[in-house]
Amino acid sequence: MDIFKKLAAAFAVLVMVLAAAGCKEKAPKKTEIGDDALVLASPDGKLELRFGLTADGTPAYSLSREGKDVILPSKLGFELRGKRLDKTYEQKSGKVYDHPVDFHSGFSMVDAQRDSLDETWEPVWGEESQIRNHYNELAVTLEKGKDNGTDAVMVIRFRLFDDGLGFRYEFPTQDKLRYFTIKEELTQFAMPGDITAWWIPGDYDTQEYNYTKSRLSEIRTILPNNAEWNASQQLFSSTGVQTSLQLKTDDSLYINIHEAAVVDYPATSLNLDDKSFIFTTWLTPDAQGWKGHIQTPGKTPWRTVMVVDDARKALASRLILNLNEPCALDDVSWIHPVKYMGVWWEMITGKSHWSYTDDFPTVELGVSDYSKATPHGRHGANNDNVRRYIDFAAANGFDALLVEGWNEGWEDWFGCQKDYVFDFVTPYPDFNLKALNEYAHSKGIKLIMHHESSASTVNYERHLEEAYSLMNKYGYDAVKSGYVGDIIPYGEHHYSQALVNHYLYCVKKAAEHRIMVNAHEAVRPTGLCRTYPNLIGNEAAMGTEFRSQVLPHHVTILPFTRLQGGPMDYTPGIFEMDLSKLNPSDHSRVQSTICKQLALYVTMYSPLQMAADLPQHYKAQPDAFQFIKDVAIDWQKSEYLLAEPGDYIVIARQAKATGKRPAADADWFVGGVTDELERDLTFKLDFLDEGSTYEATIYADTEKADGITGGKVLDAKETYSVTKMEVNSGSELTMHCARSGGFAIRIQKK
Amino acid sequence: MDIFKKLAAAFAVLVMVLAAAGCKEKAPKKTEIGDDALVLASPDGKLELRFGLTADGTPAYSLSREGKDVILPSKLGFELRGKRLDKTYEQKSGKVYDHPVDFHSGFSMVDAQRDSLDETWEPVWGEESQIRNHYNELAVTLEKGKDNGTDAVMVIRFRLFDDGLGFRYEFPTQDKLRYFTIKEELTQFAMPGDITAWWIPGDYDTQEYNYTKSRLSEIRTILPNNAEWNASQQLFSSTGVQTSLQLKTDDSLYINIHEAAVVDYPATSLNLDDKSFIFTTWLTPDAQGWKGHIQTPGKTPWRTVMVVDDARKALASRLILNLNEPCALDDVSWIHPVKYMGVWWEMITGKSHWSYTDDFPTVELGVSDYSKATPHGRHGANNDNVRRYIDFAAANGFDALLVEGWNEGWEDWFGCQKDYVFDFVTPYPDFNLKALNEYAHSKGIKLIMHHESSASTVNYERHLEEAYSLMNKYGYDAVKSGYVGDIIPYGEHHYSQALVNHYLYCVKKAAEHRIMVNAHEAVRPTGLCRTYPNLIGNEAAMGTEFRSQVLPHHVTILPFTRLQGGPMDYTPGIFEMDLSKLNPSDHSRVQSTICKQLALYVTMYSPLQMAADLPQHYKAQPDAFQFIKDVAIDWQKSEYLLAEPGDYIVIARQAKATGKRPAADADWFVGGVTDELERDLTFKLDFLDEGSTYEATIYADTEKADGITGGKVLDAKETYSVTKMEVNSGSELTMHCARSGGFAIRIQKK
Repeated sequence: MDIFKKLAAAFAVLVMVLAAAGCKEKAPKKTEIGDDALVLASPDGKLELRFGLTADGTPAYSLSREGKDVILPSKLGFELRGKRLDKTYEQKSGKVYDHPVDFHSGFSMVDAQRDSLDETWEPVWGEESQIRNHYNELAVTLEKGKDNGTDAVMVIRFRLFDDGLGFRYEFPTQDKLRYFTIKEELTQFAMPGDITAWWIPGDYDTQEYNYTKSRLSEIRTILPNNAEWNASQQLFSSTGVQTSLQLKTDDSLYINIHEAAVVDYPATSLNLDDKSFIFTTWLTPDAQGWKGHIQTPGKTPWRTVMVVDDARKALASRLILNLNEPCALDDVSWIHPVKYMGVWWEMITGKSHWSYTDDFPTVELGVSDYSKATPHGRHGANNDNVRRYIDFAAANGFDALLVEGWNEGWEDWFGCQKDYVFDFVTPYPDFNLKALNEYAHSKGIKLIMHHESSASTVNYERHLEEAYSLMNKYGYDAVKSGYVGDIIPYGEHHYSQALVNHYLYCVKKAAEHRIMVNAHEAVRPTGLCRTYPNLIGNEAAMGTEFRSQVLPHHVTILPFTRLQGGPMDYTPGIFEMDLSKLNPSDHSRVQSTICKQLALYVTMYSPLQMAADLPQHYKAQPDAFQFIKDVAIDWQKSEYLLAEPGDYIVIARQAKATGKRPAADADWFVGGVTDELERDLTFKLDFLDEGSTYEATIYADTEKADGITGGKVLDAKETYSVTKMEVNSGSELTMHCARSGGFAIRIQKK
Repeated sequence: MDIFKKLAAAFAVLVMVLAAAGCKEKAPKKTEIGDDALVLASPDGKLELRFGLTADGTPAYSLSREGKDVILPSKLGFELRGKRLDKTYEQKSGKVYDHPVDFHSGFSMVDAQRDSLDETWEPVWGEESQIRNHYNELAVTLEKGKDNGTDAVMVIRFRLFDDGLGFRYEFPTQDKLRYFTIKEELTQFAMPGDITAWWIPGDYDTQEYNYTKSRLSEIRTILPNNAEWNASQQLFSSTGVQTSLQLKTDDSLYINIHEAAVVDYPATSLNLDDKSFIFTTWLTPDAQGWKGHIQTPGKTPWRTVMVVDDARKALASRLILNLNEPCALDDVSWIHPVKYMGVWWEMITGKSHWSYTDDFPTVELGVSDYSKATPHGRHGANNDNVRRYIDFAAANGFDALLVEGWNEGWEDWFGCQKDYVFDFVTPYPDFNLKALNEYAHSKGIKLIMHHESSASTVNYERHLEEAYSLMNKYGYDAVKSGYVGDIIPYGEHHYSQALVNHYLYCVKKAAEHRIMVNAHEAVRPTGLCRTYPNLIGNEAAMGTEFRSQVLPHHVTILPFTRLQGGPMDYTPGIFEMDLSKLNPSDHSRVQSTICKQLALYVTMYSPLQMAADLPQHYKAQPDAFQFIKDVAIDWQKSEYLLAEPGDYIVIARQAKATGKRPAADADWFVGGVTDELERDLTFKLDFLDEGSTYEATIYADTEKADGITGGKVLDAKETYSVTKMEVNSGSELTMHCARSGGFAIRIQKK
């Protein structure tokens, strides 16, 4: 029996040891930056960055605002791919690369340089004529142990603005680190607790998701159900989210994590450890799973942490643009904002088709003879229809008309991952390239070209020069490009390094041809439009075309998130919300009032603005349409009057001076939007000039309006009112918004 | 005890059942084609193809020659990728595609059409002026069960020639099968036993291997040791081999398996089941592991089985070319054979360098300023050196001079998988594009352009138009391209479908610019030079540059294997075998006598022939060099006098008429090569015109010559003799060859 007692005791000890070893729930060791940390303050002194090395030589930083934690101590660094193994080893072990290289610990700091800048620069187009770029900078040079044999040098450069932090890694020219491949970037953002976030699921291929507002701890349970279907998507983690990520602490600090200047590097998402509430960068892999091929001298994009104490300041922040390189183009005279319409919505709604014929089970470009095919009669981009749109757009002061479905190949473009899917130069038999462009020009407008690559990017590049030259030949100066479907080269993703390079290649080549680019399904922008202002638009978020799927709060979040890196071609301006009126099979609605649609021209800044609906729907509501005709699309000044992500936004903007009148006399436009809740929004017009009088034309939801159901009305006219009143800088307005409603105001100086 | 007996019995049964179930060594069920099989005979009746469906509807074929089995009953068909699963299923199961689709059984035959063709066509260049294309054809239409819901149609087309079989799959236009992706092609070649093969390891990226001769059963043990290192390689199986695969039965039937007309499809290797001795096609995967994206109407390449009873007939076979499409170019006047030299061997041996400077740890094209860099002084392609080569090449009747290392970027091109590695247009400071081309033209020769893509194919395509235009501008009409290293797009292979398409894209675009292409490290050719005769060369095998590594028997095998699909730029003509004479650090040898090098101009047919050595080595042996100057490189007729793969080859060829003399009077050239064994080769000159007298200039190994060690000589002159003698159609010659030796003869009509 004595033996049994000993055995029992031993067994108990064994169980406890095993339990302890098997316990995965150990609290992670917190990162600690020593007291000898370097400190960097923002110009106004409110933000403080601390940087230092932990005990094992891991670079780490933290950020606070007036003493409140914004980013708790967070690690920096990389895991690199190991060196290529020799063949004998590979053959025996099956491994191709040696174990990964630690590039995140074992560093020593060999230098720290400080700098600052206070400049003002002028964007070619934007929310304001001038942008102030004011920061304090700290650049630390780290060296990884000569003893380890790595002997590599890395610089981390921090720029601290009054509204946030940007930092990036730089790899100077050096003999020991010439070319390397990243296994993962290990940049952390340790959140100050289980705070609130407005997020979309992390994905390598699409951002076309509705936003979810939740605590960080809830992401894991919500995400699997909220990842709506897309033509190309790739989730990677049940706690993965995309940037720009908007957060809010319980102290009402608004924190936004994003990146700036993504060039020759994969786009990043963030993966949350929901025990520690630490986000870590999660780069988009290439086809083999590697996450960035770097040549020295090289640099990563800027990782940005905006932090403001007022939501309106988040909208006013130019952190991302300020971190981008200045304009690289010598001549920008050919770049201009574009207000346009399109032969497009009728295809989106199924009223007509992009395609021309049902004759071909598959299309072989150059072989399938369209001249002999029987048209199915529902081709949208036909000569007569396009002429009708041209007439309407020209008569109503638009700059341009987009035409989709003009070219051979639309019969089998979708879902086949077809390589030679379009040639971008051969029109359908009923689309006369020459005649239609001449007709448009005779009416004073241009056509906008459409290049749907169908994600077949090698094919697109093979035809790019010819396609851009054709545009020059026929007088197009803008193209909407698209990347619907899974990317070719196979296994690459919309956000991988190779594709980031492809998109920029197209923009640069377009600039050589004096062509402006609006790239859909491409990587979400990170401020490159400062360097290449011919990049006048992207999509990279769920837009109007998703109809019923778009939640009412969507447009109250996008300016905080998606628009940080650049404008979005949101394609607003829908007047007929019931899509069964266009296509009886389409039972979806645009969940918005007409006035909310008008407001979007102000709240969703873009130099490229579409009046997306069909001419007949504008003809039916000329009063409301007048706002779209009048609204400016390029601004000298913007004021963010009211804002709360997910709830409401009210913005006032002053149009850029046209030269006919003094700048100060230019029109102001105000736009306001709300989410699924009806609400009253009250704001002052104290941005107006004191002593001047103005006439305000106010487009407002009526009591009958309802952005979710449409309201109990017989005619859309009943959903909005147009009233004029005199206002001045002392005025205060209270605007009533219906559910998913809004308002728009034009203010003209008398 | 009774229970124990029962338990023991049950246990014994259990053991036996388990043993039977666990037994993996069951003999595979042999394929059986029914007696109602369709039979196709070759024009001369000696070859017989049988085709039918097995009991479960699997298409199968067999081939015999005069009653002897060549291909035992072998299955045909595919496994296709399943359909894309919906998102919900994917999220739960982790699967993206449904289970694979059986496209190899359950067929019924719905039609069989017979045809035949007997035509003669003229290649633009080749081993003869005319080629006879004579076959009987059987095309079977198979339908896969309407009941299964697949309802797809496939055609298998067989063409039976006197020297072999070609067959391919075709997928006609059809509604149910529009786009599909192949998981694996399951074409079998059931060998008639454990026969002999000359093989190289199956690999997705390179053919630069020595050949091994062995029984099929020995491949498994030999392969892992014989897969020599390469800058880019990917083995896939210990019994995988490449095509063209040469085999020989114990009855002395020579069988050769290859493919013809690989277009928009991955190249195939063969995987051997070494229990059944059945080879199955093993396609090259894309970056995601899929093996071919097909649009209907579509077709696979031709799978070819050559079978002859005499090795010389294998060299005479034009099976591959005959299965390719006729010439697609309207104007071929600008296409011509090229005899050339090169600023190249001195870099291969390390005597000089492709690169210009040691200043840059990495090169940033357009940023790294070469005009300010210090030249390291060992740059091969400098103005003076190039002029010296031009002088020599022009003075000795060559058409052109290849210059490698002329352009910026060579300092870090190798082994980095660098994306923007070359721009193909910017010369080094010491290479004057304009002046050197003018100088060459003033001497009556052209320069050959060099485009080393470094396997960065997206980058190469971005610069292709500009690069070809630059060639036109400076008067280049030929380019050697290269694909050294791992392919970009990442994860693709040199032999995948995307790369097959890339190479052809470059050839087609070159034709638009009237440029001839010699593509190194590209996919091994499969007869496309018939359709695009501006494709005048490929490498795709181990060539002279591998020096010591090249086994003596190599060139006695290549004409049976590598050359079946098109010519090889083997770059022969080395006179100085001891490379330490060029570079003291290079202790390798070219394992060949001088006469064997001369013979290669005849035995290794190519319209593009290089005298690869340095001018000074030719100046030292003007007698031997005379043969290179005299030898023709385009032929009206070829006679295969003696041949055994791996042992020896003797070929006689008559030059194409120049127009100055009657065709019948054109020179004959004879070349003979042996392997590592010394041997005497006896052959008749009965191909000469009866009644005419000829003078033969004979270049022969002396007794002192030794292709492996160099022989105990003080001067290379001692290793060869040049003698003249009168010959006629009744003559018989016995040529003595040293180890890895050979001979070359010029025969001029008196």
